[in-house]
Amino acid sequence: MATPRYFMLADSASSLPARLRDEDAEHLLRVLRAEEGTTIWGLDGRGTKRLLRVTRARGGRGANSRLPAWSQLALEPAGEDEFVPAWGEPNGPGAWVELACPLPKGSRADDWMDRLVQHGLSGFTDLVLEHSEVAARAPSNARWSRLGRVACEALKQSRSTWLPRFSGPLELADWLASLGSDLGKPGAHAAWLDPGAKLPMKAWLQRLDQGGPARRIWIAAGPEGGFSKAEGQLLEASGFAGVNLGTRILRIETATELALGSVRLLGH
Amino acid sequence: MATPRYFMLADSASSLPARLRDEDAEHLLRVLRAEEGTTIWGLDGRGTKRLLRVTRARGGRGANSRLPAWSQLALEPAGEDEFVPAWGEPNGPGAWVELACPLPKGSRADDWMDRLVQHGLSGFTDLVLEHSEVAARAPSNARWSRLGRVACEALKQSRSTWLPRFSGPLELADWLASLGSDLGKPGAHAAWLDPGAKLPMKAWLQRLDQGGPARRIWIAAGPEGGFSKAEGQLLEASGFAGVNLGTRILRIETATELALGSVRLLGH
Repeated sequence: MATPRYFMLADSASSLPARLRDEDAEHLLRVLRAEEGTTIWGLDGRGTKRLLRVTRARGGRGANSRLPAWSQLALEPAGEDEFVPAWGEPNGPGAWVELACPLPKGSRADDWMDRLVQHGLSGFTDLVLEHSEVAARAPSNARWSRLGRVACEALKQSRSTWLPRFSGPLELADWLASLGSDLGKPGAHAAWLDPGAKLPMKAWLQRLDQGGPARRIWIAAGPEGGFSKAEGQLLEASGFAGVNLGTRILRIETATELALGSVRLLGH
Repeated sequence: MATPRYFMLADSASSLPARLRDEDAEHLLRVLRAEEGTTIWGLDGRGTKRLLRVTRARGGRGANSRLPAWSQLALEPAGEDEFVPAWGEPNGPGAWVELACPLPKGSRADDWMDRLVQHGLSGFTDLVLEHSEVAARAPSNARWSRLGRVACEALKQSRSTWLPRFSGPLELADWLASLGSDLGKPGAHAAWLDPGAKLPMKAWLQRLDQGGPARRIWIAAGPEGGFSKAEGQLLEASGFAGVNLGTRILRIETATELALGSVRLLGH
């Protein structure tokens, strides 16, 4: 039997009747034309996987398309909830890997976020840096909402359970302060991408295997113009290792995606 | 002094006067407003880097915008040509890494190719597989031309010198036959992406470091529906190792990009 498809729940409170997000109910009912008895996984994006069975579906001929899809769809639990521990937790899906960089401009950022979530992004912080473009310094609420929707789609597609935590915009010093003592804890590793650094990323990746399992990993990347000298010094003083990704010049989207993807590929 | 920017030459015959491609001349003259004395690198996409000096530039006020840009730009060599050996050659920029998979649909393929070239793609073969969508089986000439232009832009941006070699569409058996005895040569490695494979990509990547430097690497990936059973058997019989990229389901664009990127990141 094929693995049941993944859908997003409208809310995470397990005492409420199970409801899907509007767009997920719409998709299940009108595109996939779910029938009574179909089972699906409902996700809350915070670790819960709920196996659900369709008990009523009016999506086909004769359906009232002016009623919201969720109201024409009834679901009941088809088993106990499963819970996947969070990133960085024992028995979780892997280390907490957070990316901090200025949010790239335009629609490319959507596709980029889609790929990052496929790779298992745990957290993303939008950094405001000296060389950030001024126009990019304050993403609108609509922009964040769109990124959130992109993340939901990628979560379902990749069959993961935890949505990334978004934060920012934050100045570099404020972000570093928010990490506080976590940076010094066992299993913590931090790097900043610096084309001029002597340490190749390969060597830094090997460090992740030393001294116990990697638990929390932070990767900071700059805008097209790079970090300023003062920002680089601040990162170094905070325990971030400067790493290079080789001789080819990668765009920030490509560089950050490779950094996250390779950390996951190597088993963290 | 900043590294001179990279531009594509109109042709590679070094006995001809140095000319840029129309769009590159246009960019240099009208966007960057090059002046006499500016130096640039001219690339032929086949290993040659030619340092050139602008000796005449009529791009500003008073320029005749109805004449092609290249005709208002004169260049002369500013040094001996440099030549970067090809992928897979001794002293070259790295192993030959070829990707073979069905060309993804639509405009996402352009952005994908852009990132692949940033990562140092050596060759790309468009595979026709049992589960390929019929509509995707014969990319138009215009589509190939567009991918070629995307590759040029990515080459310049990443400061590389070798454009990837495009081939296909080819049936899997024909592609494998074209590789012939190269598959068995020292330093040759081949993998196919198979979510059901037991071998993690991490373990396969470690093999690349054993028994001398990796020289030629082929990575095959299937369409959304995966390879058919017969295709998987054919790949195995040809010496391709099935590898998995972990438990998350990655789209073909994301999976192939990570495979190529991690091979390069690990120094091949």
